[in-house]
Amino acid sequence: MPDRAAPATKLLIIGGAEDRVGKAKILKRFVKLAGGKSARIVIIPTASSFQDEVVTAYTEVFTRHGAESCAVVNPRTRIEADDAALARVIAEATGVFMSGGNQLKLAQVFAGTAAGDAILRAHQRGAVVGGTSAGASIQSEFMISLGDEGITPRQRSTQLTHGLGLLSGVIIDQHFAQRQRYGRLMSIVASSPDLIGIGIDEDTAIEVTDSREFTVLGRGGAYVLDCRRALTDAPEARTGAPLLVSGAVVHALPAGSTFDIVKLMLVDFVEQHPDLGVSVTTAASSRP
Amino acid sequence: MPDRAAPATKLLIIGGAEDRVGKAKILKRFVKLAGGKSARIVIIPTASSFQDEVVTAYTEVFTRHGAESCAVVNPRTRIEADDAALARVIAEATGVFMSGGNQLKLAQVFAGTAAGDAILRAHQRGAVVGGTSAGASIQSEFMISLGDEGITPRQRSTQLTHGLGLLSGVIIDQHFAQRQRYGRLMSIVASSPDLIGIGIDEDTAIEVTDSREFTVLGRGGAYVLDCRRALTDAPEARTGAPLLVSGAVVHALPAGSTFDIVKLMLVDFVEQHPDLGVSVTTAASSRP
Repeated sequence: MPDRAAPATKLLIIGGAEDRVGKAKILKRFVKLAGGKSARIVIIPTASSFQDEVVTAYTEVFTRHGAESCAVVNPRTRIEADDAALARVIAEATGVFMSGGNQLKLAQVFAGTAAGDAILRAHQRGAVVGGTSAGASIQSEFMISLGDEGITPRQRSTQLTHGLGLLSGVIIDQHFAQRQRYGRLMSIVASSPDLIGIGIDEDTAIEVTDSREFTVLGRGGAYVLDCRRALTDAPEARTGAPLLVSGAVVHALPAGSTFDIVKLMLVDFVEQHPDLGVSVTTAASSRP
Repeated sequence: MPDRAAPATKLLIIGGAEDRVGKAKILKRFVKLAGGKSARIVIIPTASSFQDEVVTAYTEVFTRHGAESCAVVNPRTRIEADDAALARVIAEATGVFMSGGNQLKLAQVFAGTAAGDAILRAHQRGAVVGGTSAGASIQSEFMISLGDEGITPRQRSTQLTHGLGLLSGVIIDQHFAQRQRYGRLMSIVASSPDLIGIGIDEDTAIEVTDSREFTVLGRGGAYVLDCRRALTDAPEARTGAPLLVSGAVVHALPAGSTFDIVKLMLVDFVEQHPDLGVSVTTAASSRP
């Protein structure tokens, strides 16, 4: 056992389309979590089709908000991602940021490589790991990589792919209200009720501490979908059919809300309204 | 006390855009509930801006599916709606059908008039009352008459107007998935947690028996939103802000599902899966 307590671990998971040119509240927060003036940030533009532009834009905004340095890690193949030099760059970072684009590219190139493992270790030692859109999805253990729009959960309308697993037990979806992803996330969680769905709106982030609780920041909201007690016909329904999902517990969480993802209940609201504690315990009992 | 048990009461509440020219499954069901070959149906086109077309279309489809007769009740003002002759026409009917259009027109003209009361009495004596779109919303005690699209519940994004009250304790919304009305219905139910939200998709209906349970029929689904145990900042949030609604219980119910709107739990599924009874009781306990 080390003498000191382990540092708090931090993730900043952004639902895409975050403000970069205005007050850039979320990206400013990323720099602060990475150490402010001593922030050494690694930018990973691998998911994007516009990598030069992505690197320029994020370097500009992180530097503008005081980061000490920005480096780029951009392997194109798994072989390149196994290069120990890249892992060493990540090992030096106080913050790792993954851009948007195609999350399958991130899964393809990083998962299970030296660079991918270096991101996991960076998180464990207390460096903040952030990402937007594709860079958000890749942080969960499994991520949604396809799916229709709409509020109706449909059978086999989505596909799961293995992510980096920075946050286990959850499925993250992004551009949530804007691209109407409620139904697709619900269909996944109904089929895998031991996982919790977290949907994040555009220009909105969840700041996750110690893989235990998150606080919402930004312009929109985050949504938690919990099907642990739901009844569903997901094991039998035919492809494309609207799913029966009865008894899902849903949390719509605007900026400022803090949510316990282990107990699956609101943290701040309970502290502010201790008299409501009983209802909360009933609505969102702890995981079995 | 009468010698015979009271007849079952029936409502057929349609989420709009139901098929009329194909198999017309839902409207055929309406004729059957109205007595089939002895069905005497009153059509109320008052909500519509295309009343002649509405009357022609529904007369055609109801007659094609075997109804004995179709009459029209179409008061333009509350004074006309107080005409005892209209109430007598409704008193003779075995089925009353209200078209789509503007539900505020229906509320304006019918609520609290002789014709409106005649619809309530028709329901109580066992005549089926049906309606689509506006004609669906008007059946609840309070109805949503405005609102934005999207999955995010927002403060004061909607307005309630008094309906006919054929089904009390619920708010009905229509065109539900198609017009993304999840957020607007959730915001209403979060603010009035003693009411239950029921959203109905297009070409989909709920058949309500004895104001106690409903079965879903048609192409889409119905949704039940239950905020009895939810925590919300609705009493304090500013206009337009995304609402905190934590712990809402949501039921997505495809065709064939039967739902108990008093106990707020699935009926059919429990009967088919008796071993799941315990989870159901936990997920949807009875109303206080």
